[in-house]
Amino acid sequence: MNSKKINIAGAGLVGSLLSIYLKQKGHEVHVYEHRPDMRKTSLDGGRSINLALSDRGWKALEGVGLSEEVRKIAIPMYRRVMHAKDGSLSFQSYGKEKQAIYSVSRGGLNARLMQLAEERGVHLHFDEKCLSAELEKGTATFKHKLSGEAHEVTGDLLIGADGAFSALRQQMQKTDRFSYSQQYIEHGYKELNIPPGKDGQHQMEKEALHIWPRGSYMLIALPNPDGSFTCTLFFPFEGENSFGTLQTPAQARSFFETEFGDALALMPDFDEEWTANPTSSLVIIRCYPWHRGKTALIGDASHAIVPFYGQGMNSGFEDCTVFNQLMEEHGDNWPEILNSFERNRKPDADAIADLAMRNFVEMRDLTGQKAFLLQKKIEAKFSDKHPDKWVPLYSMVTFSHTRYSEALRIGKKQDAIMKEIMALPEIEKIWDSEEVEALMLSRL
Amino acid sequence: MNSKKINIAGAGLVGSLLSIYLKQKGHEVHVYEHRPDMRKTSLDGGRSINLALSDRGWKALEGVGLSEEVRKIAIPMYRRVMHAKDGSLSFQSYGKEKQAIYSVSRGGLNARLMQLAEERGVHLHFDEKCLSAELEKGTATFKHKLSGEAHEVTGDLLIGADGAFSALRQQMQKTDRFSYSQQYIEHGYKELNIPPGKDGQHQMEKEALHIWPRGSYMLIALPNPDGSFTCTLFFPFEGENSFGTLQTPAQARSFFETEFGDALALMPDFDEEWTANPTSSLVIIRCYPWHRGKTALIGDASHAIVPFYGQGMNSGFEDCTVFNQLMEEHGDNWPEILNSFERNRKPDADAIADLAMRNFVEMRDLTGQKAFLLQKKIEAKFSDKHPDKWVPLYSMVTFSHTRYSEALRIGKKQDAIMKEIMALPEIEKIWDSEEVEALMLSRL
Repeated sequence: MNSKKINIAGAGLVGSLLSIYLKQKGHEVHVYEHRPDMRKTSLDGGRSINLALSDRGWKALEGVGLSEEVRKIAIPMYRRVMHAKDGSLSFQSYGKEKQAIYSVSRGGLNARLMQLAEERGVHLHFDEKCLSAELEKGTATFKHKLSGEAHEVTGDLLIGADGAFSALRQQMQKTDRFSYSQQYIEHGYKELNIPPGKDGQHQMEKEALHIWPRGSYMLIALPNPDGSFTCTLFFPFEGENSFGTLQTPAQARSFFETEFGDALALMPDFDEEWTANPTSSLVIIRCYPWHRGKTALIGDASHAIVPFYGQGMNSGFEDCTVFNQLMEEHGDNWPEILNSFERNRKPDADAIADLAMRNFVEMRDLTGQKAFLLQKKIEAKFSDKHPDKWVPLYSMVTFSHTRYSEALRIGKKQDAIMKEIMALPEIEKIWDSEEVEALMLSRL
Repeated sequence: MNSKKINIAGAGLVGSLLSIYLKQKGHEVHVYEHRPDMRKTSLDGGRSINLALSDRGWKALEGVGLSEEVRKIAIPMYRRVMHAKDGSLSFQSYGKEKQAIYSVSRGGLNARLMQLAEERGVHLHFDEKCLSAELEKGTATFKHKLSGEAHEVTGDLLIGADGAFSALRQQMQKTDRFSYSQQYIEHGYKELNIPPGKDGQHQMEKEALHIWPRGSYMLIALPNPDGSFTCTLFFPFEGENSFGTLQTPAQARSFFETEFGDALALMPDFDEEWTANPTSSLVIIRCYPWHRGKTALIGDASHAIVPFYGQGMNSGFEDCTVFNQLMEEHGDNWPEILNSFERNRKPDADAIADLAMRNFVEMRDLTGQKAFLLQKKIEAKFSDKHPDKWVPLYSMVTFSHTRYSEALRIGKKQDAIMKEIMALPEIEKIWDSEEVEALMLSRL
C-alpha cells in the first residue's frame, strides 16, 4: 500500500473521525478547519447542543478505539416520554431492554476526536478558510484568517468534510452534470434550556428523550450530564401558529402556557432565551456525484438531513466505516474506492433523508396518538416472538447496521401489514391474540 | 401609476420581451446582457437552434404587437411524423385541423425582440457581466467586458432573466431558506444537420416535426426556412448505447445506419458534425422563492425545464403575460406583484417541468407504439364529439391557456380513464363503437 498525502477540509465530527481512519491506513493526513481550535475557545459559542449517538455511530468510534471512553460521558435514553397538554405522561421504549440511544455533547465529542487525531499524528490546521479548489487535481487554496495569507495545498486526494454548506461542493456545483438540491423545510427550530434542580439533579426523567407532540409541531428535550435538559422547539416559520406569530416573549410565553405548560414551569429564563436564541432553519442537501477527479465529499457535505431520526452524525460516521471498508477492499485503487463509495452509499443517504422526514411526522404527531402506541406495542411483541421475521423499522435504523435503503424498503412493507392489522375490528381488545399473530405471519 | 427605474439582467428571449411589457407600462427600463449584441455578430456561434412556438408564446407576442410579423417567418408543424427503423412512416396530428406548433429560429426571434425593445425606448447594454448584487436593495454590479470597468446599477427593481445559470439566482441561493435544485437528466443531446435538397427544398415533409422513436432514446428534426432541418439526437451519456460508447464518427455512423438509416442518408456532413458539434447536457432547475427584497427572477432563471414539450420559451413568455396581468391588477403595489407572481406561477412551473419529462417518454418510446397511436385516435375522436368534456392533455398544454398545473391534474385523470379503455378486449376493433364512447362518458 502506497502512503498518500490526503487533505481534508473540515475538522467537524466526520472530518476528524475520517482523518483518524486514513492515518490508520498509513497516509499523511492534513485537516484544514475554518474555525479556531474549539479546544482553546468556547464550544460552539456556548450553545449546548447534544446529539443522539446510536449503533452506527458506536461502530465507527469502535473502529478507532474510542467507543468505551465516549460511553462513559454519554447518557442512555431508553424510551420516549410523551407529555400531553394536561401534563400527563405516556411512554414508548426505543427497543428491547437495555437498548438505548445516547445523548452526547457535540462539542465534547468533536474536541475528543480532534485530540485523538493529533495524538495519532494527523496534522490539524485551524482558521483556514477554503477559497477555491481545482477539483481534478485535488488542489485547494486556503486563506489563514489571522495572517490573511492565502496558500495552495496539494496532495493525492482532497476530501470535503466541510458540512452542509461545503465550499468544495459549491465548486463541484459549477461543473457540468452535477445534480444538486437544497430543500428548506417549513419548520425551523429554537433551543431553550431546563436547568438542573436545586439538588443539581435532572428535573424530569433523566434517561429518556422527552417529546411534547402537538400535531404539526413539537418540543423535545434531551438530558445533559450537568443535570440540565436542552429543549428544542420545532415550529413552522409561517402560518397561524408559527415563529412569525410569536414575535414577543410575552406572546411565546402565553403560547407555551397552553401548549407546553409543564416544560415552561421548568424554564426560569424563558423570556431572555426566547429573544436571545436564534431561530434556525432546517435544510436537506442532496447531490451527485460525490467526487470529481481527486476531490471527494463525505458526511453533511454530500447528504445533509433533518435531525428527526438522530441519524445526521450517525450516517456521517457510517460513511467513515464504509470508506474504511472500501480502502481495505480496493487497496491502492483510489478511483475505484471513490466510485464505489458514491455508488454504494448514495441510495442509503437518500433513504435516511426520507426516513428522517418520516420520523418528524411520527414524533410530532403520531407519538401523541393512542393507536400509534398500540401499533408499536403489537410490533414489539411480534418482534420479541419472531426476531428473525420482524425487526421494527426504528430498530433497523437505530440498533442495526442494515443498510438504510434496505431498512426503508422493509419498513414500507411493514407499514402495509400494520395498516391492515390496525384496521381489524376491536384491535385494542384482540391485539394480544393468536389471531393477530397468525395474520401477521401470513402476510410476511 | 409611478414610473419606476427597472433593471433587467439578460437580454435573452424572456428578458427582451419583459422589457417591452415594462416599457409599455411607462417605466424606465435597462437591460444588461453579458454577451455582445447578437444583431452585430453571428447568431449563437452559427448554431441554428429552432424552437417550437405555441399558443402561450403567441399570446405573449400579441401583447406587444409582434405576433403577426413573427408568424410570417415561422413554419407550422401540423403533425408528428414517426420514422421506423425500416424507413416506414406513421403520423399523429398535433391537434384539430389547422392547429400547429411553429418552428422559429431562436436567434432571429431574439434579435427581433431586442430591436423592438430599442424602438420602444428600452435601453440595452451589452458585454455587461453581472458580478454581484444586493438583493434587498435591488442593486447590481456589472463589469463591462471590453473596458474591464465595474459599475453599480441602482433602481427600484432588479429582475434576473439571466437564464438557467442565472447569476442573480446564485446570489439568492446563499440566502437562508432559499430552496433550490439543479437536476441533470441522464440524456444529453447533439445537433446534426439535414441540408436542403438540390432544388433548395426540404428533403422530408416540411410542415411536420419528425421523430425517430427508439425506446430509450430518439432523434428528432425540425424544419428551417432555408430548406434544411435541424436534427437533435437525445441520447444517454452512459451505458450500452450512449455517447460514451460512440466515441468515433465511424462508430456513430455504424449506429446511425442501423437505427436512423433514412436520416443518415440525408446527412452528407455527418462525420464532421459528429466530431465538431458539442454534446450538451440537459438540466431541470427549480427554486423558491422567486424574489428577495427588490430582486426577482423570471423565465429559465427560476424554472428551467427539459425541451421535450417545446414549452421552455412558451412558459417563459407566459411568465411575461402573467407578470403584465399582475401589474394591471396591483398597480403600484410592487411587493404584492412579486408575491403574487411567485405564489401563482410556481405550481405551474413545477407542473410543466414534470410534463416535459413525461413528454420525453411519450416522444422517444410511446409514439413508436401502435397502441399509443390508437389511444390518441380515440381521444381525438371523443374530443371532437365532446369538446366541452375532453381536451387532450397535449392540446391543453399547447393550444390553450389553461394553467399548466390544471392541465397536469386533468391529464392524470384522463390517463386513468384511457388505461381502462385500452385494456378492453379487442379495443383495436371496437375503438370506434358507441360502447367505448358511453364508457368514457360514464367515467368523466
